[in-house]
Amino acid sequence: MTEASDWPFELSIAVIFRDIDAMGHVNNAVYFTYMETARTTFFVNRLRLAAPEDLPVIVAEATCTYLSPLRLGETLQIRMGVSRIGRRSFDLSYRMTSGSERLVARAKTAMVTYDYQRREAIPIPARLRTLLDNSLSPNT
Amino acid sequence: MTEASDWPFELSIAVIFRDIDAMGHVNNAVYFTYMETARTTFFVNRLRLAAPEDLPVIVAEATCTYLSPLRLGETLQIRMGVSRIGRRSFDLSYRMTSGSERLVARAKTAMVTYDYQRREAIPIPARLRTLLDNSLSPNT
Amino acid sequence: MTEASDWPFELSIAVIFRDIDAMGHVNNAVYFTYMETARTTFFVNRLRLAAPEDLPVIVAEATCTYLSPLRLGETLQIRMGVSRIGRRSFDLSYRMTSGSERLVARAKTAMVTYDYQRREAIPIPARLRTLLDNSLSPNT
Amino acid sequence: MTEASDWPFELSIAVIFRDIDAMGHVNNAVYFTYMETARTTFFVNRLRLAAPEDLPVIVAEATCTYLSPLRLGETLQIRMGVSRIGRRSFDLSYRMTSGSERLVARAKTAMVTYDYQRREAIPIPARLRTLLDNSLSPNT
Repeated sequence: MTEASDWPFELSIAVIFRDIDAMGHVNNAVYFTYMETARTTFFVNRLRLAAPEDLPVIVAEATCTYLSPLRLGETLQIRMGVSRIGRRSFDLSYRMTSGSERLVARAKTAMVTYDYQRREAIPIPARLRTLLDNSLSPNT
Repeated sequence: MTEASDWPFELSIAVIFRDIDAMGHVNNAVYFTYMETARTTFFVNRLRLAAPEDLPVIVAEATCTYLSPLRLGETLQIRMGVSRIGRRSFDLSYRMTSGSERLVARAKTAMVTYDYQRREAIPIPARLRTLLDNSLSPNT
Repeated sequence: MTEASDWPFELSIAVIFRDIDAMGHVNNAVYFTYMETARTTFFVNRLRLAAPEDLPVIVAEATCTYLSPLRLGETLQIRMGVSRIGRRSFDLSYRMTSGSERLVARAKTAMVTYDYQRREAIPIPARLRTLLDNSLSPNT
Repeated sequence: MTEASDWPFELSIAVIFRDIDAMGHVNNAVYFTYMETARTTFFVNRLRLAAPEDLPVIVAEATCTYLSPLRLGETLQIRMGVSRIGRRSFDLSYRMTSGSERLVARAKTAMVTYDYQRREAIPIPARLRTLLDNSLSPNT
């Protein structure tokens, strides 16, 4: 079994009223914003970036599997780790729980290192690669 | 090659300023809202629902592959069709283009027919099944 | 009585599922996004800007009076005009209706012409002033 | 001078990447979501509501004065209090700061007690009135 503490990054996010839709639960698109919040916080903090715009990374693919509805009043626990490292791309895996480890969602984003000026994929820069190497998710 | 006209549903969505993030392109989570807009419009119109809350459906999984950044001033063309029909679930496929058929993204959502009161999956109701049968995506 | 056609700018916005909150109507914050959509569309189109970032304007104050709830399936008609022109600031007024002119909301934003690089207010540039002079709201 | 501790309610909100728009600062509409987060948290907690939908209140007017741009990495401190109590309505005032009390925005929302079923204003219920009486903002 995977221990929560095995994940290299973890963030608590309180569900807010605006995250809820007309069905009374957190809207499906909002989970991708939760992941983005985890991801940008992780990279900005660990690489000591001045702004997320300084991270040469773009999302190439994003998948979320919804396992249990999330409601207002709950606090999401999102854990994140690197599950694949390529030459110009890498994958991040996410595990989202609430309360006493009730599994809410599992997700993955494929990231491409990207030069926003020249608009093309670039090899993973050395400093980023070191961080990724040290941040593997428990299932990798 | 798939003709645009082969898809059973199509919607134009103008990109708005709030869809853009600090990177200057449409934020990755917003594509899932575009899909939801297509999906709810389709079901409410075709099934003549009073409200989306009357549709007994929940998103079980959502995936988007981003192929080309989308910017302000562009109008997204989103096409949608049914790509799988099961007993208590079905898949929707989406193809998003801009301008002269520049491919922006491909996506899929797995939907489960769901009783929101009893909080459990239910067989696809007959009227919904008929609509799904008549709305297959071109690749199915 | 003010005729709809007296307003210098008008835009139709279809309410989408994500605009609705747990109360079943359009969320109060979303009206400010509707206004922004009208405003950025107006300025980008009329001044032929490459991007909204090229408009040297910042919101200094925003007010909305909600008169009737707006629901999914409705199409908002938003009209906008200039209601005050100062030396380094101006006001925009908005009138939002749905259906056969049911009044949904009235709103105003105070705008300051602003140099984003130097982070200070600047006099209204000549080209923008000409546009504002020609775009007065009917009550001005 | 108003002490921070004079306000009956206070909440910290970390700015997230999705709150930022193409101009590089928190989007003007997002401040109204921050206020809503403060408001719903306050009422749900203090009145021990099962859900915000149980609060018979609707926003009648909302105003925000923006004093200093807010950026990613900052944590907003939002303070809230009751600044007027009527028979079927009341006002909430908000003071938003960041860092060492840098004033970011001042805002106000006029709230109407409202029966969502019958769609009409109602007198402020006794339990809510008691809470409001005990939650005056420092300037009231």
